[in-house]
Amino acid sequence: MEGLLTIPGIKVGGIHCGIKRKGKDLSLIYSERPSNWAGVFTRNKVTSPCITFNKRRKNNKISAIIINSGNANTGTGKRGMDDVKKIARITAKNLNVLYSSVLVAHTGKIGEFLPMEKIEPGIKRLVASLHYGTQDDCMEGIMTTDRTKKDVFLDLGFCKIAGIAKGAGMIYPNMATMLSFIVTDACFGNSELKEILKNCVDETFNRISIDGCTSTNDMVIIMANGTAGKVDRDKFSDGLLFICTELARKIVRNGEGATKIIRIVVEGARTKKDAKAIASSIANSLLVKTAMHGENPNFGRVLSACGTDLLAKIDPKKIKIWLQNHLVIYCGVKAEFDRERVKEALKEKEIEIRIELGLGSESMVFLTCDLSIEYVKINTKYS
Amino acid sequence: MEGLLTIPGIKVGGIHCGIKRKGKDLSLIYSERPSNWAGVFTRNKVTSPCITFNKRRKNNKISAIIINSGNANTGTGKRGMDDVKKIARITAKNLNVLYSSVLVAHTGKIGEFLPMEKIEPGIKRLVASLHYGTQDDCMEGIMTTDRTKKDVFLDLGFCKIAGIAKGAGMIYPNMATMLSFIVTDACFGNSELKEILKNCVDETFNRISIDGCTSTNDMVIIMANGTAGKVDRDKFSDGLLFICTELARKIVRNGEGATKIIRIVVEGARTKKDAKAIASSIANSLLVKTAMHGENPNFGRVLSACGTDLLAKIDPKKIKIWLQNHLVIYCGVKAEFDRERVKEALKEKEIEIRIELGLGSESMVFLTCDLSIEYVKINTKYS
Repeated sequence: MEGLLTIPGIKVGGIHCGIKRKGKDLSLIYSERPSNWAGVFTRNKVTSPCITFNKRRKNNKISAIIINSGNANTGTGKRGMDDVKKIARITAKNLNVLYSSVLVAHTGKIGEFLPMEKIEPGIKRLVASLHYGTQDDCMEGIMTTDRTKKDVFLDLGFCKIAGIAKGAGMIYPNMATMLSFIVTDACFGNSELKEILKNCVDETFNRISIDGCTSTNDMVIIMANGTAGKVDRDKFSDGLLFICTELARKIVRNGEGATKIIRIVVEGARTKKDAKAIASSIANSLLVKTAMHGENPNFGRVLSACGTDLLAKIDPKKIKIWLQNHLVIYCGVKAEFDRERVKEALKEKEIEIRIELGLGSESMVFLTCDLSIEYVKINTKYS
Repeated sequence: MEGLLTIPGIKVGGIHCGIKRKGKDLSLIYSERPSNWAGVFTRNKVTSPCITFNKRRKNNKISAIIINSGNANTGTGKRGMDDVKKIARITAKNLNVLYSSVLVAHTGKIGEFLPMEKIEPGIKRLVASLHYGTQDDCMEGIMTTDRTKKDVFLDLGFCKIAGIAKGAGMIYPNMATMLSFIVTDACFGNSELKEILKNCVDETFNRISIDGCTSTNDMVIIMANGTAGKVDRDKFSDGLLFICTELARKIVRNGEGATKIIRIVVEGARTKKDAKAIASSIANSLLVKTAMHGENPNFGRVLSACGTDLLAKIDPKKIKIWLQNHLVIYCGVKAEFDRERVKEALKEKEIEIRIELGLGSESMVFLTCDLSIEYVKINTKYS
């Protein structure tokens, strides 16, 4: 039995209903016992109606999450919201649960109406499939241009946590989106769960970048059905952090066209905010990403990216930079290093760029991936 | 006689001194009459010492600007600043002008020391070449991965303005940089010139993006030698705006790997700042840039990019979007349009994306280019 299904009372499924030309495109996560839950959602101000719909349920107990891939249902106005409600209503009816206990998620192309004539009968089949549905079915139903499935499972003894994720790639193949769904048998109230989840997301999913584009449909949802009873909050938080860290890593590793995962470590910042601003400025630099793709020790691009955020404090004369543990910039000036050895070290699949700012004690780890020709190819294509 | 040389008392030159393997790499713009001047410089906090050096001369009169390509002289610490001073001193000596009247600019790879043993004798030859130097020589000496030379000339009758520019491409081939040098025979004081230039730069060079990377060496310099005497400020400003607009356009058109120029028009914003934030968020979206490269009417990516700036105010329900004058989003919802006709329209070399926010009366035009496989190729390569 796999991850999500090891949580008592959880059933999952995934089917092809016809939103995508092929492959599964409709998934369900169902908890027999109504669960507490929390969600963290995209900060894009253009959102899919499912985001608003789910947020309104923040005080409810949740029985099911229904997710489709292939269509983001964004830029669809009132009809888009009506479709979300319809999906929730049909799901509730077929599962025999409360309408107010259903969450909805979409991922895919923006600006198209959902093909409800395919989704409606799909939901009926999907609910019927829960008897034999596997985590693989469920993961496949939320995938778009993902090349790999992404799941993590952790048994803490006193409780279990399991999660799946998709993205961040461009969807079908048109939009960057990440979705993650996590279930646990631990018992926490909605607001406590929200606090714990938010902290974990801030340190994981909020510290990754594939291409600097914020999706309209992002969400991370956790359901806690409480079958394991009350558990230690700190230990649970650590466990959830592990789950989120691993899922975030898997998303970056599977970034569109990505051949390398790049770990950016900023240390010695005055504030946490500065550390994050500088780390993300490096993570989003096309010049850094193409240099790492080419396995070039082009520290100048990293140094330059350190200075581009207008608010974050730096002193160029204090900056030290290491590429794969080779010091390349010492106090703002090129260090003596063996270029050939560094080039060799950059052939690894995992690259570390470490920056010491020398201004304080705050630090930040941020993950990104390299930028390849494949990325441009995937996103230039239109279907 | 070409642009810069039509300004009375201006001489220019460009030679190969050996910083780059081939092609001219050292240029000079010389004004026989010490000129008032103004400059606008990069906002990156990591800068080349030439930036600090030039800023210190803001109250001086200027006789010469010496520029090299192939090496940005950034990340070079004290030695870098010593080299700038040395270059200015040798130039001053050879031209027989004041040390304090020389400006220095570099463009090229970051983190390498300048090959002074090549530059020193080069300056001597360069000064000697002023007798026969052409604007082409001068433009070639500041080029890196630029595929075309970029110059504009305007005769206003009462005065002339001529300018050249380089970038924004990646330099040699490692760093994005733009440099622009403008000369005029109009007469303005340094501080008045600064005001005029700053306004023009804000509306032109500060509204273009190739890859969202801020260079460490950016500068726009104007020299006004005053031989035409006092002129009408408003008319001169209009002329300078034209010069800057054309140079900025040429830079975007020649962006690395660029096949299309994309004009982003944001209208109906609450504030100018909001308009710029939204325009630049669209201009820097890899998804928008790859979609335009693929000639795909992927309005969803544009809509999504409208919402990503955390501070700029939007109301998704009010947004209208046009691609090449075809309405594709009406009040946040996909409009009815003929996809084939829009695809056809996107085959043009110049694309216009127009966004109406419906919140106010501020607007902004921003230029960017598409993102191609060629861009990734150029910047993945290391030399």
